[in-house]
Amino acid sequence: MNNKLKILGFAGSLRKESLNKKLLYAAREICPDDAELEIFDIKDIPLFNADVEAEGDPQSVKDFKNKLRQADAVLIATPEYNHSIPGVLKNALDWASRPPEKVLNKKPVAMMGTSDGMTGATRSQQHMIQVLAAMNAYTLSKPEVIVPNGDKKFDEAGNLTDDKTKSKIITLLTELINWTQKLR
Amino acid sequence: MNNKLKILGFAGSLRKESLNKKLLYAAREICPDDAELEIFDIKDIPLFNADVEAEGDPQSVKDFKNKLRQADAVLIATPEYNHSIPGVLKNALDWASRPPEKVLNKKPVAMMGTSDGMTGATRSQQHMIQVLAAMNAYTLSKPEVIVPNGDKKFDEAGNLTDDKTKSKIITLLTELINWTQKLR
Repeated sequence: MNNKLKILGFAGSLRKESLNKKLLYAAREICPDDAELEIFDIKDIPLFNADVEAEGDPQSVKDFKNKLRQADAVLIATPEYNHSIPGVLKNALDWASRPPEKVLNKKPVAMMGTSDGMTGATRSQQHMIQVLAAMNAYTLSKPEVIVPNGDKKFDEAGNLTDDKTKSKIITLLTELINWTQKLR
Repeated sequence: MNNKLKILGFAGSLRKESLNKKLLYAAREICPDDAELEIFDIKDIPLFNADVEAEGDPQSVKDFKNKLRQADAVLIATPEYNHSIPGVLKNALDWASRPPEKVLNKKPVAMMGTSDGMTGATRSQQHMIQVLAAMNAYTLSKPEVIVPNGDKKFDEAGNLTDDKTKSKIITLLTELINWTQKLR
């Protein structure tokens, strides 16, 4: 047993070479010693359908909810699609929000995002703040980690090479850890 | 051949007894004579993944885009999930927004929504306006058709029984038809 805080990370983009997945891998690598970041892939979570839910959560949904329940905090890395949250990410959050568990209720959450354009997923985070508030998650407002031109910030092996972005992620994780400890 | 305007309708909820599907069926029933409403079910549209897209759109996505391309106007009926657009609906719109076609570009769109609570999907429509603007759809702002307590407004066979709601839907469809004709 270790006493490290458990942070669960997931990305809002499903493609293998997703820049936001790479941002999560970087966060796992440079995570401060008092926490550990586990990454969950939401790709198997099916479209939300109350008829399916009525027959029992699919296994992928059970796994996602279990991981969220066990986590002390959550880190979401997401691009923006059409000035908002990717449907695939919103869909996973819709499942997570369902009673009776409401696994994101009072859960500390931090966000970061990158895109290959200049805006770096800003507007997605604005909608995320509203959606997470609806779930009564405790979302960290600052620091805002928005990484423009993400396609230029990783090497061919997918490693984050930009020191300024690394430093931003470390600050975000440190704040998330403090926030989680305060809220315990 | 008829000269009726073609309106494509789809709902943001997948369950069979969806109140928003029932709202669409009612709209199809009472649609003014100069238009006809066809309903598309988005349930088979998979989670958006750029790796999948790179291999070619799945058949359900092709079908959805074809229907949108052929439609003169669009009518979306949606609940709100967690103060925003249901993930399943946002996901379908994410597919529809993709180049090179961008089938919602300059497409006249109207919205309506119902829920069994008091707010009737208001906040979902606020985010929809922003998302549809990102796609350069021509979204009708008024009338706002928001139907609270939707669970009390249909009979057991799923027919809309509330005259006030019927009248609102007819006004919405009439405005959508005028809007579409002006923008031709």
